[in-house]
Amino acid sequence: MSWERFKKYLINLDKLGFSLDVSRVDFDDAWLSSMEPKIKKAVADMKALEGGSIANPDEKRMVGHYWLRAPKLAPSKELSDAISENLSNIKAFAKKVHSGEIKGSDGKFKYVLCIGIGGSALGPQFVSEALSTPKDKMKVLFLDNTDPDGYDIVFSQLKGKLGRTLAVVASKSGGTPEPRNAMLEAEEKWKAEGLDFAKHAVVTTGVGSKLYNYAKERGFLEFFPMWDWVGGRTSEFSAVGLLPAALQGIKIDSMIKGAAKMDAATRAKSALSNPAMMLALMWYKCTGGKGLKDMVVLPYKDRLLLFSRYLQQLVMESLGKELDLDGNRVEQGIAVYGNKGSTDQHAYVQQLRDGINNYFLTFIEVLRDRGGESPEVEPGATSGDYLQAFMLGTREAVSAKNRDNITITVEDVSPFSVGLLIALYDRTVGFYADMVNINAYHQPGVEAGKKAAARILEIKRKISEKLSSTPKTADEIAKEINLENDTEIVFKVLKHLAVNSQNGVRASGSGFDSSFTKE
Amino acid sequence: MSWERFKKYLINLDKLGFSLDVSRVDFDDAWLSSMEPKIKKAVADMKALEGGSIANPDEKRMVGHYWLRAPKLAPSKELSDAISENLSNIKAFAKKVHSGEIKGSDGKFKYVLCIGIGGSALGPQFVSEALSTPKDKMKVLFLDNTDPDGYDIVFSQLKGKLGRTLAVVASKSGGTPEPRNAMLEAEEKWKAEGLDFAKHAVVTTGVGSKLYNYAKERGFLEFFPMWDWVGGRTSEFSAVGLLPAALQGIKIDSMIKGAAKMDAATRAKSALSNPAMMLALMWYKCTGGKGLKDMVVLPYKDRLLLFSRYLQQLVMESLGKELDLDGNRVEQGIAVYGNKGSTDQHAYVQQLRDGINNYFLTFIEVLRDRGGESPEVEPGATSGDYLQAFMLGTREAVSAKNRDNITITVEDVSPFSVGLLIALYDRTVGFYADMVNINAYHQPGVEAGKKAAARILEIKRKISEKLSSTPKTADEIAKEINLENDTEIVFKVLKHLAVNSQNGVRASGSGFDSSFTKE
Repeated sequence: MSWERFKKYLINLDKLGFSLDVSRVDFDDAWLSSMEPKIKKAVADMKALEGGSIANPDEKRMVGHYWLRAPKLAPSKELSDAISENLSNIKAFAKKVHSGEIKGSDGKFKYVLCIGIGGSALGPQFVSEALSTPKDKMKVLFLDNTDPDGYDIVFSQLKGKLGRTLAVVASKSGGTPEPRNAMLEAEEKWKAEGLDFAKHAVVTTGVGSKLYNYAKERGFLEFFPMWDWVGGRTSEFSAVGLLPAALQGIKIDSMIKGAAKMDAATRAKSALSNPAMMLALMWYKCTGGKGLKDMVVLPYKDRLLLFSRYLQQLVMESLGKELDLDGNRVEQGIAVYGNKGSTDQHAYVQQLRDGINNYFLTFIEVLRDRGGESPEVEPGATSGDYLQAFMLGTREAVSAKNRDNITITVEDVSPFSVGLLIALYDRTVGFYADMVNINAYHQPGVEAGKKAAARILEIKRKISEKLSSTPKTADEIAKEINLENDTEIVFKVLKHLAVNSQNGVRASGSGFDSSFTKE
Repeated sequence: MSWERFKKYLINLDKLGFSLDVSRVDFDDAWLSSMEPKIKKAVADMKALEGGSIANPDEKRMVGHYWLRAPKLAPSKELSDAISENLSNIKAFAKKVHSGEIKGSDGKFKYVLCIGIGGSALGPQFVSEALSTPKDKMKVLFLDNTDPDGYDIVFSQLKGKLGRTLAVVASKSGGTPEPRNAMLEAEEKWKAEGLDFAKHAVVTTGVGSKLYNYAKERGFLEFFPMWDWVGGRTSEFSAVGLLPAALQGIKIDSMIKGAAKMDAATRAKSALSNPAMMLALMWYKCTGGKGLKDMVVLPYKDRLLLFSRYLQQLVMESLGKELDLDGNRVEQGIAVYGNKGSTDQHAYVQQLRDGINNYFLTFIEVLRDRGGESPEVEPGATSGDYLQAFMLGTREAVSAKNRDNITITVEDVSPFSVGLLIALYDRTVGFYADMVNINAYHQPGVEAGKKAAARILEIKRKISEKLSSTPKTADEIAKEINLENDTEIVFKVLKHLAVNSQNGVRASGSGFDSSFTKE
């Protein structure tokens, strides 16, 4: 590849220990020029967004996650103060927990049980894993689903430790079923050990939400606000992300600083010096502005394993939209996947090199190998040299086959660099959404999912009412509850009921003709 | 959706607690009939493969992973005996470890440190996590990369415990750098604690490989063979997968039984009763036989989180091929990604519902909620009812938008069902590869990656030789070693050297004009 082209397009932010190399994407200056109107519009719209415009029109909300990293930029003193005060509260609370001033029934809190899903889980999980050290002040665990067996796995790790475990329940809306279910099951666990859950729990949610009232009534230890102008998938710098991080012992000021520095850098008007704009442009070039290629994210660092999953949420939930801002049906989106190198070179990189060309790659390179020194694994080479060699080698190989690829380089994995990576992608998603004219800040499909689930539960209740000692088939029950068109759902709910013995439902016979009874 | 269509195409294997529902893929009987020649050929070729044909022509090898689940089917008594004997050895060894007959310097082994990458890591990781219980006999950890910091993270968890840790080094070829590097770093750790690594290590590799000789010379505790007719990504039922599983305390006989039962079921000649054939056909229908859509795998169960990553390797490494069996350039493959439901409904399912229609979905449903009973989280509903409701609701929603989707149902997550799931996909990949006329059993791109990395390391050595107290730029060094066309690589290697202080390399100045010196 060309050293001249590399030098020409590299965005090198030396003071941030960050660089972005897009030289291995197939574009030229003429194409960049042709994008100038979109670039200008994206910069202007982003400025308006940061100024407090209603940038999420469907939900009639401001979009303020950038203010969390620079409270003074918030559009009112009231908001600035609220952000700063919240940050002080988080730090003060974590300090009291660490010192033992706030403690559990069995003494100083040693464990954090984060209860949340989606936007309230993936960010905290990514940050917790990326920045964990043997010196962590607390160990953080997660309940991020409504899987009963999944709950049991986590609670088995906390056996005998609940009196030293702090539950952190996060739900922006305060009405999401999964964290509600996890919290209720957690409450039972504490109760079973004769402990008062409320004295071991804090909550992060919107003021006045169901969860807010629940926590107030029971006297949870502390409350941290979620604001309607912070989206779940961009909430890492609200209490959702900062509280667990602070409890773990992560330097959250440094994380905020890294994000703020990247936020500042990505306000540059020229694409050639704005890494988020350049990255958004590359997404546009690689996918035709229509998501025609998948985004594969390959960090060469174990700590960053969850970054691709975090980005999967951020990018796909933000960009995967049916309608554009003018109401046209566009079915936008970019699929994101990836794990880590060089591990994945022994898995799916075979396909990336040789197979279907339906993706573009983002390599994430970390220059620092480890805290201490590395032994040589052969003369003149450490395991870290190998890691870099695999990354550079793969880059050469895919480039030789004209697979578009991008390289992000950071000096290390630290609170600062994790902050800046998150901020980089926050902004890139915003710019890209602007270029393809969609609302990056709502998620109508998620609401639809909640409704669809509620309907299934309603069907389940109706089925339970009709079950008795008289054997009935799925067909018969569906008819009884006037849901012949949903007989398949009835059948599947019955199968589930029959396997879980506590329901007292039994199946006899086999296949579709099975009859179901209830004791 | 149609109950009649559901009943018509459901492949229900009651005795296996397994069913496959393809009714929500857009196909009809006429299309199925048109595929009959491909079905017949795939069945015949698979029969030949199981009979010991050279089914991997490029590497001139037999493909024998099915024999591992039914040794009597191996094409010679010698092979049958070798498989059975190996299985006995694994069980006997695990028993001795559990009883303490074989022990570490500090007593009974309590920890297993698996060292391996790709095919020697993803299967064992998936199985370990899917089947972990509080009663596990040993705790299993993994070194699956060449990331020095990643090594440090794992070793920090084993601090003071190495005398009770059994290292299991697995490398089919015995020459893969990542496990070699990890093993060498592990050896240093044991040595630093005054312990003899060899007395805490076993090895799984090919007879006569580099690693084999290394282990023999040092007197490792035990050796388990890898055969050239077992591919890395299908090696879960060789010692690579069974040894760690047995050490953890997983019932490997039950896993093998589950796989063997599914192997038997997927020998059926009629697609309508062969779940692997039906699944392969659906892949073909959904992707046009060209990988035109991504495969999203969404298990609704925390334990199965790693299944999509396991399948990513199996499917993409098997199918991502440049050339077909006749040497035509086809650039085949199917991209695979996924995590778990309902968690992902709060992440990327927004895009699946509303966004770009570039995928087909595989739901994996687990009927059993948990070991014990579930409390109600509201009248008439448990957290497990919610989990099913989210799955069924999402299925309805994506089906309503004509997104092709498949549902696999298993009764529980057990050694038996994990075995059958692995076997199902082993066979499906084989059938699909046959339909699109590619070799599913080689991985030329992975070899290319190893060579590319070796070249980078060679460049690094040359650079190191040229560094001195005289400051030189990347341009100057590249010229000195006659690699002007690779100045970018030289620059990137220099940056890496400078950040890792043990190299004694220092950078001065900034950007591309930086000069580098060495003490």
